[in-house]
Amino acid sequence: MALVVEKLAILGQGLIGSSITRAVFERNLAKQVTITDASPKVRKRLLELGLGAAKVVDSNEEAVADADLVIACVPVGIYGLVAEQIGPHLKQGAILSDVGSVKTSIISDTAPFLPNHIHFIPAHPLAGTEFSGPDAGLPKLFVNRWCIVTPPEGSDKNAVSTVQALWEGMGSKVEVMSPERHDQALAITSHLPHLVAFSIFHTALAQEERTQSPVIQFSAGAFKDFTRIASSNPIMWRDIFLKNKGPILDVFRRFIADMESCADAIEKGDGEKLETLMTKSRLTRRRVIDKEHISLLPDEQDQRLEETLFRPYSSE
Amino acid sequence: MALVVEKLAILGQGLIGSSITRAVFERNLAKQVTITDASPKVRKRLLELGLGAAKVVDSNEEAVADADLVIACVPVGIYGLVAEQIGPHLKQGAILSDVGSVKTSIISDTAPFLPNHIHFIPAHPLAGTEFSGPDAGLPKLFVNRWCIVTPPEGSDKNAVSTVQALWEGMGSKVEVMSPERHDQALAITSHLPHLVAFSIFHTALAQEERTQSPVIQFSAGAFKDFTRIASSNPIMWRDIFLKNKGPILDVFRRFIADMESCADAIEKGDGEKLETLMTKSRLTRRRVIDKEHISLLPDEQDQRLEETLFRPYSSE
Repeated sequence: MALVVEKLAILGQGLIGSSITRAVFERNLAKQVTITDASPKVRKRLLELGLGAAKVVDSNEEAVADADLVIACVPVGIYGLVAEQIGPHLKQGAILSDVGSVKTSIISDTAPFLPNHIHFIPAHPLAGTEFSGPDAGLPKLFVNRWCIVTPPEGSDKNAVSTVQALWEGMGSKVEVMSPERHDQALAITSHLPHLVAFSIFHTALAQEERTQSPVIQFSAGAFKDFTRIASSNPIMWRDIFLKNKGPILDVFRRFIADMESCADAIEKGDGEKLETLMTKSRLTRRRVIDKEHISLLPDEQDQRLEETLFRPYSSE
Repeated sequence: MALVVEKLAILGQGLIGSSITRAVFERNLAKQVTITDASPKVRKRLLELGLGAAKVVDSNEEAVADADLVIACVPVGIYGLVAEQIGPHLKQGAILSDVGSVKTSIISDTAPFLPNHIHFIPAHPLAGTEFSGPDAGLPKLFVNRWCIVTPPEGSDKNAVSTVQALWEGMGSKVEVMSPERHDQALAITSHLPHLVAFSIFHTALAQEERTQSPVIQFSAGAFKDFTRIASSNPIMWRDIFLKNKGPILDVFRRFIADMESCADAIEKGDGEKLETLMTKSRLTRRRVIDKEHISLLPDEQDQRLEETLFRPYSSE
């Protein structure tokens, strides 16, 4: 793999940050890597782990001092603080990037603290596990996963290319889009599903308390998938929900309206409407799966679904 | 494994029916097994597959004629019809059981057609895959999965024991409860998650159409779990939603109210409320997982969660 950058700094060594450190060394993407973490306990653990030849330092300021490219891997709520810390210490012409799940808020939170001579090129790898911390990192975490790069208007093309090359070097498929479009897309494909998974537990717990009857133990496959989603880090998700408030509230309210329309169909016994809704879902899945060049559905089912695609559907 | 029954009939050889056929032969639970399916194509395939030493016959009437135990594995919407077909042909004192996802409706749908001399002991195995048809069956599908047996009040104890023994013989954990309690429990742990997964696709598709911007391809883990759930059979789920209307509408409306309260918290920027909601979800997951004697969360996280359990939470 070709070298992407001379001096790389990675701030934060949780699941994502430590996966980047591991991937960069495995694929020789940088000549020199400096890493740090806000937690002294994590920094101690980094010294024990000895990730590649990474140099572990005690502060963000120290880590970025000489870096050509800095990737901040911190919770979405504190990018402003980190920008304030590192702003005065960034090298002339350095590239700054991130891995946050919300892009517009990170751009506006950091803007006041970043000098004009640096290039902020935000990025968001769509990858993760339910685990966290420097031990959870995996060098192959980003392989064949999307990384969305969201350069603000007028960004330096070379800087965008460097960030793109780093993610491609780690095995990701890179898509470049505006920060606004990213936030709208993720609101529906990631933030809403998490919000729903968290909420469904609240409803289940309340039902157990109300009826004094345990139900959650009798959970089949679907509920277990929800539990996996709902076991994600609460602090991280609280910040995502609050930082992407506008797009999330927009899809959330549309979803609630769709649910209400669905409840009405059940109440009225409108089987045709329910069937059409569900058949559409199946087709969508096929499309998601096709993107990965996998087909799980037998041909016959596919054909039936194609036929159904052309049936009218009204959401009322 | 000890023999549970002399003559067993299994009506319907889709995923569940053909898994029972396979499991019964693998574990020698019956001396003689007769199977059938409403589809001539499936019956032809059954002859090709040669599941154990099962005798394939052409009608439900013929299949049940001499059976001690009959298990109907048909869509929840047609149990009344099947009862009408087999009622007059059931042997004196025979046991009838089923595998439907809704219990009270199946009991009331079949009641008019079942003679007094037979014992109807409904059951519901909480097991499945996203595939269907006689080729999809697995002999180990029910191992370590719950099977809920829901005898109507006053059921014959020996008949209940026989049905329980069959499921335990196939490796299931059996829980006996009332049909009403089953339907309430499954409404929240299975029916609602499916309804939500189907609905979220509708919302995502509508957003793509509205914004003319593909978003679904950028789906991370959470959305993929939803797609898996939403790829279940539309006809089967339409029937479940309509047959379990009361309990589903009840939890559905509570869930919508919880979602609205959650949307309000986001709108007001109430991070504490969001965090508490999500921490509770994590704890619930731990409880679900503990039931299976698996712990995925490190000790430290668990402790933090326990502490948070005692924080006040208001759903407003």
